[in-house]
Amino acid sequence: MLDKNKKILIVGLGLIGGSYAEGLTNNGYYVGCITRSASSIEYALDKGIIKEGTTEIKEEMIKKYDLIIFALYPKVFINWLENYQSFIKEGAIITDVTGVKESVVTKINSFLRKDIDFVPHHPMAGKETYGVKNSDAAIFKKANFIICYNDNKQESIDAIESIGRILEFRRISYLTLKEHDEMIGFLSQLTHCIAVVLMNAKDSEKLVDYTGDSFRDLTRIAKINEEMWTELFLLNKVALLKEMDSFINEFMKLRNAIQNDDEEAIKEMMKLSTLRRSYFDK
Amino acid sequence: MLDKNKKILIVGLGLIGGSYAEGLTNNGYYVGCITRSASSIEYALDKGIIKEGTTEIKEEMIKKYDLIIFALYPKVFINWLENYQSFIKEGAIITDVTGVKESVVTKINSFLRKDIDFVPHHPMAGKETYGVKNSDAAIFKKANFIICYNDNKQESIDAIESIGRILEFRRISYLTLKEHDEMIGFLSQLTHCIAVVLMNAKDSEKLVDYTGDSFRDLTRIAKINEEMWTELFLLNKVALLKEMDSFINEFMKLRNAIQNDDEEAIKEMMKLSTLRRSYFDK
Repeated sequence: MLDKNKKILIVGLGLIGGSYAEGLTNNGYYVGCITRSASSIEYALDKGIIKEGTTEIKEEMIKKYDLIIFALYPKVFINWLENYQSFIKEGAIITDVTGVKESVVTKINSFLRKDIDFVPHHPMAGKETYGVKNSDAAIFKKANFIICYNDNKQESIDAIESIGRILEFRRISYLTLKEHDEMIGFLSQLTHCIAVVLMNAKDSEKLVDYTGDSFRDLTRIAKINEEMWTELFLLNKVALLKEMDSFINEFMKLRNAIQNDDEEAIKEMMKLSTLRRSYFDK
Repeated sequence: MLDKNKKILIVGLGLIGGSYAEGLTNNGYYVGCITRSASSIEYALDKGIIKEGTTEIKEEMIKKYDLIIFALYPKVFINWLENYQSFIKEGAIITDVTGVKESVVTKINSFLRKDIDFVPHHPMAGKETYGVKNSDAAIFKKANFIICYNDNKQESIDAIESIGRILEFRRISYLTLKEHDEMIGFLSQLTHCIAVVLMNAKDSEKLVDYTGDSFRDLTRIAKINEEMWTELFLLNKVALLKEMDSFINEFMKLRNAIQNDDEEAIKEMMKLSTLRRSYFDK
């Protein structure tokens, strides 16, 4: 377990940052935070989920912390480090919760101080609400905690894995940056693309009365934060386009089988989808 | 309300046919059935949801019934009428629960006896299980009952609407055959296509461990009865291909916006999907 004397700084106190603060504080760690909104800090101090918080980025404060967790939008995260990495304690460990990895990590590693050990991870958890006021460490209990391979010290990797255990994630796993982005491109980004496209394809207002559960389930994620998701899509462009193209390719196969009345081809695709979907019910 | 002396015959005692039998019997109607499986009849008699049942198609039995509800696969339904319409009582009303309308109804009207009044309808209800043993009239309580416009006597339309009320459907509405098929093509068939294609696009067995709720929700319907759905897709080919093409068109717009880093175009699509999805939350 992570040494109880280690001080942890959270940069970005939103839903995820706030939930980390709550979980780590409840487990006896000293947690501080830097975030843009004074009212978020006030709320968190009041709830007792942080020991100190500030909206200003000050060297004397940052220097106290052994481990920094960045819970920011990807570009803001990169800019923060470019501007303020000199404020970070010698030999500190840093990590991030960003939903795409290869482009962000490669960029950061190109300029990061050599004494700072950056171990990226991704907590696959969330809610459809925002901000520290909705934070809740319980969201991690059925979620995956993915640590991305990198050129790190074992001791730093252990510290990050230890955070996953402290927050009681259901499962901790290791993926390379590339594997992570491919998995996210398929399971998360492609499905969000489909939901967005489906709602764009037709004005469904008059169809609401006829809508069943399938359509509702499929489009739930069509309500989307366009700033964050546009950034995530573009930062994972190569992997996402690959998944989109493979989806289009299969979609055209089904479309053409229907046009050609090719019953066998349609049934083969349905049998395969039924088989593969059954893995999820185990 | 439908005259309590009217005798109702259900042809095809599966999940839907069985649920109709239960609801109508519980409301005091005389319900008989013809179905392929002797054990389904035994079960239904035992449960008291039918008064009589047979696996044989006999004129003297069929002639007793004033109203016949067909709950068969579309092609079996068409064949049944082609072969046995002469057994049906003079002036009887018939209806069906088939999920596609225009092609099926046009075909049937081309050969149906002029004294028989065929009022098609579609109960938008179901479960992911099959057979009379899973039947349950409660599935209709939150479902839509759609009656399709046709060249019918008002009294026949009233009889079918009355069945919708007796079974306590949440909402009864009227659509033309074409409107019905377009709505089903988009809301139901296109979404099933997407789920099937998504499972075909990638072997997801190793991804199961990372899968979140969005992907599970989106692919729940990828477990699919390939015989029935292939038939339904092909019988609604024109409407379905139109919806598939409009989906592909929008999908390519998003794909190309991502490839060209066109942030504004991506955000516009996300804003529209967020707006349109919000109609469903009202």
